[in-house]
Amino acid sequence: MRYSRIPDETIRRLPIYLRGLILASDQGKKKISSSKLADFVGVYPWQIRKDFSYFGDFGTRGVGYNVEKLAKEIKRILKLNVDQKAALIGVGNLGMAILAFPGFHIYGLNIAAAFDINPKKIGKTINNVKIECASKLNAIKKRKIKLAVIAVPRKAAQETANILLKAGVRGILNFSPCYLVVPKKVKVITIDIAMDMARLPYYMPAV
Amino acid sequence: MRYSRIPDETIRRLPIYLRGLILASDQGKKKISSSKLADFVGVYPWQIRKDFSYFGDFGTRGVGYNVEKLAKEIKRILKLNVDQKAALIGVGNLGMAILAFPGFHIYGLNIAAAFDINPKKIGKTINNVKIECASKLNAIKKRKIKLAVIAVPRKAAQETANILLKAGVRGILNFSPCYLVVPKKVKVITIDIAMDMARLPYYMPAV
Repeated sequence: MRYSRIPDETIRRLPIYLRGLILASDQGKKKISSSKLADFVGVYPWQIRKDFSYFGDFGTRGVGYNVEKLAKEIKRILKLNVDQKAALIGVGNLGMAILAFPGFHIYGLNIAAAFDINPKKIGKTINNVKIECASKLNAIKKRKIKLAVIAVPRKAAQETANILLKAGVRGILNFSPCYLVVPKKVKVITIDIAMDMARLPYYMPAV
Repeated sequence: MRYSRIPDETIRRLPIYLRGLILASDQGKKKISSSKLADFVGVYPWQIRKDFSYFGDFGTRGVGYNVEKLAKEIKRILKLNVDQKAALIGVGNLGMAILAFPGFHIYGLNIAAAFDINPKKIGKTINNVKIECASKLNAIKKRKIKLAVIAVPRKAAQETANILLKAGVRGILNFSPCYLVVPKKVKVITIDIAMDMARLPYYMPAV
């Protein structure tokens, strides 16, 4: 089920809440109030209650949220209740960091395939993933991989995206510093590290 | 000068426009209309005009924006008209990717120092930056570095932030999957790769 009227900003915060709940669960907590969860994740309590209100009522007033149940519910909303497989394209420095990144599993995400054009890299195994030749990218269709991470140089990004779309990919995490043109049914989230850093000086007090 | 009533979302888009303008300039363009710039960056033309309206009038109706002048103006607003030096803390896989990342310079950003606790890494030079011992982190105060990139394991992130704050850092790009507690005068932008990927399945059509 897709909740089509939910604001993107709410969807952006759901994984933040999920991470907070998993952390709370690791600390042995069974119940958590919205103000305690707020402290955990750095979001205002009213914002948390408003975000959750889109999905019905998760908590009982004065009692707080059941940590495990709420985590399960958020996973279901985000479709993270099933394992989600992703393909990584481009195993340069950044791709290598992504392959070795330990943080995906808590969300049920799994880098299940990796591709590169460099013959020196093809065939190597990193974190149980064998790097394949990028010319065989369309093979992911048979493996039912619907998510992809693009970590190729900017000039190759759009072409890579085009091949991925043909292979059935519907969600792309894009690390290339460019705007990818894709059909509306495909979601692209771009992480541009330099661009994020470029916003920092604005907020700094004048010296 | 700090434009205090500008929405964060506008500030988030300014580097996107800047990147589009630099790209247009590289292609030899002198003038650009808001609709052409919109195509370039994937933002609606009305959004661009609204964002720019906070800063006065950048364009002439029917003539479009002067590419070079507008890029210069955005750089000034974002305080990117002076070189901004950043320190990187944590030279693991991700830190290595950041050190080697070629995309910072177009914004006038410069990773000027790198720190790690691993003796095998300390003393090595990557991209003209010599990795220093993390115990000497407070040395950045003398070097007037006000920006930092945190790429250490989660458990060390808050402590690292505390040391950075004491050393005068006022803007942090945080790659650790956690919420950093800092004073209000300090801006933290967190990039949580797994969390961004965790939003993708929600948008995918049901199979």
